[in-house]
Amino acid sequence: MENSNSSIEGNNLRVRKLELSDKSKGFLELLRQLTVCDSVSDKEFEDRFKEISMYGDDHVICVIEDEISGKIIASGSVFIEKKFIRKCGKVGHIEDVVVDAGSRGMQLGKKIVGFLADHARSMGCYKVILDCSDENKMFYEKCGFKKKEIQM
Amino acid sequence: MENSNSSIEGNNLRVRKLELSDKSKGFLELLRQLTVCDSVSDKEFEDRFKEISMYGDDHVICVIEDEISGKIIASGSVFIEKKFIRKCGKVGHIEDVVVDAGSRGMQLGKKIVGFLADHARSMGCYKVILDCSDENKMFYEKCGFKKKEIQM
Repeated sequence: MENSNSSIEGNNLRVRKLELSDKSKGFLELLRQLTVCDSVSDKEFEDRFKEISMYGDDHVICVIEDEISGKIIASGSVFIEKKFIRKCGKVGHIEDVVVDAGSRGMQLGKKIVGFLADHARSMGCYKVILDCSDENKMFYEKCGFKKKEIQM
Repeated sequence: MENSNSSIEGNNLRVRKLELSDKSKGFLELLRQLTVCDSVSDKEFEDRFKEISMYGDDHVICVIEDEISGKIIASGSVFIEKKFIRKCGKVGHIEDVVVDAGSRGMQLGKKIVGFLADHARSMGCYKVILDCSDENKMFYEKCGFKKKEIQM
């Protein structure tokens, strides 16, 4: 993963993998800016964290932590689907990309998507896909994605 | 899985999970009707089959075999994505649904999608999604799906 732990120019923000302690750094509050994300107990969080960790590089969640405030201000995930088509090919699915409303305009979303897409490519995926709303289409076009199908 | 091994009325076609021996029953030839699907060696097929099997109920590929011809005539897959949103919810992703061109009009596609959606629900998914072309939108609407986002 080329982008792993890379610094964002000019500040102390870096993309890294989700850690168990990120629950106390506002990770769920950030996801709440994306969709419904009820609170869960530390045990529930840990169980889900372990379940996802079991997939290793096949399911990666990354975050950006603002080291001054100690808060998680951006996140996204990718999982690698193994197929039989395309000579037993793999596809990377990007999900749940979100940037804190107070931290927009710093290219954090692009950094998150770049990290996830780089990871998928390093895993040998022949393509990387994601679903988004019409409003977010332009953002993903700037990230190099093109509209393909419809999600149902 | 309610639909598991259920018979389709009036004939000897049933939905079941993919088996290793399905490679010799035209499984890859069927996928070729969907997209590029180059031939792979028995070893490559077996390795991928085992990799997917390791996910257990989190990644299921199902098929319909025509027991008279011994050929696989329909297939589809679903994998269960574990999330933190929606109280550590799960989403079912349906992929690679295909029905043999010579076996259309027998509701096999609907049967495959029903089997996969039932499986996702039995795994506790709060939603089941899939990406499709504009041409296939009507088929999935008949299966009870609604257009949501765009896939990039």
